[in-house]
Amino acid sequence: MPFGKVPVLEIDGKQVHQSTAISRYLGKQAKLAGRNDWEALQIDVAVDTLHDMRQAIADYWYDDNVELRAKKHGPLINEILPFYLRKFDELVKENNGYLANGELSWGDIYFVGVSDYLIKMIEFDFYEKYENLKHLKENVLSQPKIQEWVNKRPKIDFPVRLPPSYYSYGKSF
Amino acid sequence: MPFGKVPVLEIDGKQVHQSTAISRYLGKQAKLAGRNDWEALQIDVAVDTLHDMRQAIADYWYDDNVELRAKKHGPLINEILPFYLRKFDELVKENNGYLANGELSWGDIYFVGVSDYLIKMIEFDFYEKYENLKHLKENVLSQPKIQEWVNKRPKIDFPVRLPPSYYSYGKSF
Repeated sequence: MPFGKVPVLEIDGKQVHQSTAISRYLGKQAKLAGRNDWEALQIDVAVDTLHDMRQAIADYWYDDNVELRAKKHGPLINEILPFYLRKFDELVKENNGYLANGELSWGDIYFVGVSDYLIKMIEFDFYEKYENLKHLKENVLSQPKIQEWVNKRPKIDFPVRLPPSYYSYGKSF
Repeated sequence: MPFGKVPVLEIDGKQVHQSTAISRYLGKQAKLAGRNDWEALQIDVAVDTLHDMRQAIADYWYDDNVELRAKKHGPLINEILPFYLRKFDELVKENNGYLANGELSWGDIYFVGVSDYLIKMIEFDFYEKYENLKHLKENVLSQPKIQEWVNKRPKIDFPVRLPPSYYSYGKSF
């Protein structure tokens, strides 16, 4: 594995890592990556902003210090998440039920895919509160091939909070 | 500003944020984004891996708790950074002095651009230790237009460690 981390994509015996880069690449193969550079940019911006929101959640969730984690919970739920979620909700409203360019892209699939895990961490199903994001989710999950995969994929309970040492950067070395 | 954050790129009155997405877009305009999807993927992988390394540094640097920050310093310097830097150094060796595809890309420019700040935070000039990375830096900085900009850009002292509250996610809300 190139950097000792999953996911890894292997094509013709060559391995690559990095989930976002892989998703963008596969999105291009599936013609879900925008019609031109400007449209591709709009998708990338949405995905990178999701990473910002995810990072804020991770900063809370993966804090080894129980006290600090508790302290971070309020601002996360009351300020940070509403800031991002309102913006995302507006974006989807402007884009006809999608994050960018008024049509389905790999960014939408990425968003909805990652959101399961985010929702478990924050214990707050934001799709119930933000109606445009709910449409986004429906637009992704109603794709027949995606529906098929979601129905047959292995069921897992997550996230299990493993001992703090598991989450330290040291684990891959 | 779309999400209240800089940098922002404005084209034909439309504003976009997210530095990586903007850099990739500008890289495409400058024909520095790979010759095909596979090459574009190799650049994206390198940049996302730089983000992982940057995140590990940020996790140390922006920790508000002085004690925790001190505790993170050793593993960062002795384990995490060598892991990434050795891999990057090999990658550049395999790619003829660049991060991907054996030629200059926006990823190289991004790497060298961001590295100034990383080096200040870790107080360790990794270009002195990793000779292939040093070649990468030279390959970027010897580009005439880049040299010209580096010579004329405003000089700044950074990073100044501002009070912890400045770094909290709350600052943009």
